Amino acid sequence: MNPDICTERGNATFNPEVLTNILDGGAEKTRRRREIEALVISDPDFQHEDLNFLSRTERYDAALKKSALMFLKLRNYGISNPEEIYCYKSCVHRGRSQPLDLHLGMFLPTLLNQASPAQLDVFFTPAWNLEIIGTYAQTELGHGTHIRRLETTATYDPSTQEFVLNSPTVTSIKWWPGGLGKTSNHAIVLAQLYTQGQCHGLHGFIVPIRCMKTHQPLPGVVVGDIGPKFGFDEVDNGYLKLENVRIPRENMLMKYAKVEPDGTYLKPPSDKLTYGTMVFIRAMIVGESARALSKACTIAIRYSAVRHQSELQPGEAEPQILDYQAQQYKLFPLLATAYAFTFVGQYMSQMYNRITGDINQGDFSELPELHALAAGLKAFTTWTANAGIEVCRMACGGHGYSRCSSLPDIYVTFTATCTYEGENTVMMLQTARYLVKSYRQAKEGQQLTGIVSYLNEPQQRVQTRPASSRPAVVDINDLASLVEAYKLCAARLVEVAAKSLQGELQRSKHREDPWNNSSIELIRASEAHCHYVVVKLFAAKLTEISDTAVHSALSSLALLYALHGVANNSGDFLQADLLSVPQLSQVTQRMKALLAEIRLNAVALVDAFDYHDEMLNSVLGRYDGNVYESMFEWAKRSPLNRTEVHESYNKYLKPLQSKL
Amino acid sequence: MNPDICTERGNATFNPEVLTNILDGGAEKTRRRREIEALVISDPDFQHEDLNFLSRTERYDAALKKSALMFLKLRNYGISNPEEIYCYKSCVHRGRSQPLDLHLGMFLPTLLNQASPAQLDVFFTPAWNLEIIGTYAQTELGHGTHIRRLETTATYDPSTQEFVLNSPTVTSIKWWPGGLGKTSNHAIVLAQLYTQGQCHGLHGFIVPIRCMKTHQPLPGVVVGDIGPKFGFDEVDNGYLKLENVRIPRENMLMKYAKVEPDGTYLKPPSDKLTYGTMVFIRAMIVGESARALSKACTIAIRYSAVRHQSELQPGEAEPQILDYQAQQYKLFPLLATAYAFTFVGQYMSQMYNRITGDINQGDFSELPELHALAAGLKAFTTWTANAGIEVCRMACGGHGYSRCSSLPDIYVTFTATCTYEGENTVMMLQTARYLVKSYRQAKEGQQLTGIVSYLNEPQQRVQTRPASSRPAVVDINDLASLVEAYKLCAARLVEVAAKSLQGELQRSKHREDPWNNSSIELIRASEAHCHYVVVKLFAAKLTEISDTAVHSALSSLALLYALHGVANNSGDFLQADLLSVPQLSQVTQRMKALLAEIRLNAVALVDAFDYHDEMLNSVLGRYDGNVYESMFEWAKRSPLNRTEVHESYNKYLKPLQSKL
Repeated sequence: MNPDICTERGNATFNPEVLTNILDGGAEKTRRRREIEALVISDPDFQHEDLNFLSRTERYDAALKKSALMFLKLRNYGISNPEEIYCYKSCVHRGRSQPLDLHLGMFLPTLLNQASPAQLDVFFTPAWNLEIIGTYAQTELGHGTHIRRLETTATYDPSTQEFVLNSPTVTSIKWWPGGLGKTSNHAIVLAQLYTQGQCHGLHGFIVPIRCMKTHQPLPGVVVGDIGPKFGFDEVDNGYLKLENVRIPRENMLMKYAKVEPDGTYLKPPSDKLTYGTMVFIRAMIVGESARALSKACTIAIRYSAVRHQSELQPGEAEPQILDYQAQQYKLFPLLATAYAFTFVGQYMSQMYNRITGDINQGDFSELPELHALAAGLKAFTTWTANAGIEVCRMACGGHGYSRCSSLPDIYVTFTATCTYEGENTVMMLQTARYLVKSYRQAKEGQQLTGIVSYLNEPQQRVQTRPASSRPAVVDINDLASLVEAYKLCAARLVEVAAKSLQGELQRSKHREDPWNNSSIELIRASEAHCHYVVVKLFAAKLTEISDTAVHSALSSLALLYALHGVANNSGDFLQADLLSVPQLSQVTQRMKALLAEIRLNAVALVDAFDYHDEMLNSVLGRYDGNVYESMFEWAKRSPLNRTEVHESYNKYLKPLQSKL
Repeated sequence: MNPDICTERGNATFNPEVLTNILDGGAEKTRRRREIEALVISDPDFQHEDLNFLSRTERYDAALKKSALMFLKLRNYGISNPEEIYCYKSCVHRGRSQPLDLHLGMFLPTLLNQASPAQLDVFFTPAWNLEIIGTYAQTELGHGTHIRRLETTATYDPSTQEFVLNSPTVTSIKWWPGGLGKTSNHAIVLAQLYTQGQCHGLHGFIVPIRCMKTHQPLPGVVVGDIGPKFGFDEVDNGYLKLENVRIPRENMLMKYAKVEPDGTYLKPPSDKLTYGTMVFIRAMIVGESARALSKACTIAIRYSAVRHQSELQPGEAEPQILDYQAQQYKLFPLLATAYAFTFVGQYMSQMYNRITGDINQGDFSELPELHALAAGLKAFTTWTANAGIEVCRMACGGHGYSRCSSLPDIYVTFTATCTYEGENTVMMLQTARYLVKSYRQAKEGQQLTGIVSYLNEPQQRVQTRPASSRPAVVDINDLASLVEAYKLCAARLVEVAAKSLQGELQRSKHREDPWNNSSIELIRASEAHCHYVVVKLFAAKLTEISDTAVHSALSSLALLYALHGVANNSGDFLQADLLSVPQLSQVTQRMKALLAEIRLNAVALVDAFDYHDEMLNSVLGRYDGNVYESMFEWAKRSPLNRTEVHESYNKYLKPLQSKL
């Protein structure tokens, strides 16, 4: 064990195990998680060469091998709880995506939610036993987030009682679905349903794409891998071109909407029924943001504790990097953010479960709020974590660029969350739409409830007055007071956006679009709203924590998170007249004091995330801090080192010398 | 040709060729650049498989093959001007690094600058003819930017007149040098020189590391590849462990410092002599920031012109993505930044050449300013471009994640500039040191010259006064007025940093470090200074442009660049009392008007960067806009598509089905 990292752990003011239990949701959950992780880590079947040393094809092969083993072992162990399956799978694939993710995460759940009982009888057991290997094909070459314009068609032919699926254009080719390229033999294809000469919009169809015996593509099916990407080397994201492929009528998902044998279309009872899964996935991505950022923080902070560099006093020994204020100011606000997002993720998950219960009782009243919150927080947390991972990587000096640090992998595995399941800018605008609508309702005298109830506040609270005419409202040492300031700041920015929209509507001629011309203000309002929600939920979480030492450590983080946001958005707080100029320099001083407090607990705070070395897979983030020896050992295994003299020397350099 | 992109070009208000000539530095330079590019593009020897489809070892092999051919062809074509060599090389390797980069860019120049005439006689011709293949080994496993603590030793043994080179610890292993792993047979090794029992600090030594006949590592030399990284797949960045390797006395670079046969050490005449190369490389990186960002903007803007999505008016056709204000607000400030950095790069290059002339006359007076400016601008431009490339990538929706967009490659090729040649935070602090020193000199009554002369301004100009007590100084429609505002904002932040430092010095007890405790303010001051310099140089460049149409188009960009910076740092401008709250909402309105103006010229403004399709290598950024067909063709060539049924199906999935 590296002595520096031992000292760090010795200096911590709280017991990380207590905090780990809070993060897991209880000591029993921590125990069970570790038990499942141990099943994988101790399993010789899952030992393998470092993926960084393999080609993409080899990585796909290795991932599929592990996935197949995983299916078998999950059955043998009797693990069937979705949360535990997720835990086992994450451990097997070290948090990476794998070729059967969409089979597990989209194909099976969509069958369960949207197949009729008769269809379930036919399709579920073969899918559960991996005879049917499925994916979910929605996105096309030409359309992603804006799914209403998807071009694939499913035209009902009553003469044969079949649907004819067709990709009429190049842009209509299905593009991106994971596992589609080489792995799947079925796909749930989203297509525009035509029957009796009418289009009824998007519906899902179970389309066999490869022969279940030979795995060869079926007639009319053009399918393949879409080529290498930024990350996701293990996954065969695919394309699918359907050339008048016929499937039986029974292959349309018919739990809700139906097409009768004669072609009569029966509408689903509610169009909100397909809403849920999308909201669920977005809510879950908030938790992914927390996980990715907490991994990056673990690596950067542990390495900063053992890395010595430069000097603070001439002639003295080189200090730990973690002693530099500039390094603390990079990493500790991100550490605070990782905790904040973890708690927001827990909240989203609880809110989802509560509202799902309501929905099952037929109560859809809270769904719009959940939808707006999930959209905005998905965008807010993924953008923040995405940039934060790169800050962590670059805080590790040159070695952060090495694949052995795992930081490049964390980034490329995470960054796609900014785009998939709803492009972030589009998400922010969806949340803005809800905020502006709520603002107008409040103006019209409606009493708002839920998280937007702050828009009920009397408007004069948030109007701009000269700073000199009244005392500042915010106590920068008090988290509750800062939550209030974030709220008022958000309220002002929602008002600015609403007024911009109103102004544009008054000015608007035929071809202009007021909404488009207010995008800058609308997005800013959404961001401020989300930022407020995060600060508020972090503060709320603190009230649940009884362990004094943990409470104290997390309180410093929460205050740092709030003050750092004020400093980074100081213009908004000044414009809202919530802070005075002298207070802003006090914010900097207060943050410096907090950095020094957090310094003491930094290693313990990342230890509490409890990432096993095998999961983190980072030479820089090792629990024992023995970084440099491990890096040298890792480098020696680089494929280019298999021979002392690489063949290219004799092929190109040697012959060249005689010609120059 | 895609009709949308034709229309865009037809709508432009200026001739892009005129602007291209300005960017190249004259019509003749444009012609010659295109001539050199054509030599490569039309050369069948340089046609090859898409690198994205190759493994890392194959990519190294392909790069070395092209590099060897390149050396031969440069000789045959008689291209020897460094700028033209750089152009040819960039074209051969599509802007990527290659295994012989350090031989060309560091080993040969270091020989020229630091070898004695006798040494040049021995080493230069073999190196020029690639019998000696060299690299430059400075960074160690444990030390990068802080080179004074490098641990490799070179101990002189007068009995044999040899130096003994040694890597005494794991952390002293040389780590990262390009071409060191497999390609080079020599390295210039930076080591602590010991002679007659005394250490004389870092010096350079020419160390043979592999046999020039067999290419096998020499006795005592442990050398290899450091493994895969984030990008740089073509380069064998290497490690080098020296176990008491003996080299002749004549292998120490002895143009300035010397060790005599008896071991007597002779100091170099000036310690500023090795300063120059480092400053040169940092100054050049500013130009790299501009190039990387302009490539990313070219791709994102062209794709946004041909991509249609969603709707502005219900029921109307899908607009081009470029019509969305949110998209414009992402991309156009970055386009403006790419132009700004291009002009700053030109300025740095001119300044470097001028000051080098002075230095050759023995005049070092401007070197500190150049050093401080190069450090800060290297950090400022690389951080900005780094984040900007990712914004461009994510502005392309899902397809920005595909390797065929080239955006992931642009990012991973560029991001290392934030760390190499001086870690950015360290660079910012170096600039801050110069700013604070200049501030103190001005306070003491010295008249500052050069770019920091604004710190001479009377202090009351930049003190905080209540906003209501005087009119705002800035005309947000006037670039000169905005340059003035940036200057005053920077002056205030330098003062804030200097005062923080002063306060810390007064409070300081034995173990505290005032400098460290003021890092947040110091870095902020550096950033503001650099931002001011960029705005100022952009404005200055406009005065040189005589073509009215081009001047007008660039003026809109310059104003957008300045206003966007104000909006993003509104807190600083408000705190400096340079803008009022109502003015800030005018800033947003003015930016919206500028976005609409730039919209008209956006495609022409990226066309003017004049990246040939072969150089850009991006399906999304194609000049003809035929994106989707090309993407489908590219995907079909993915290695996973070589067989319809991947062998992993029969190895893992088929056998599994019977077991479940």
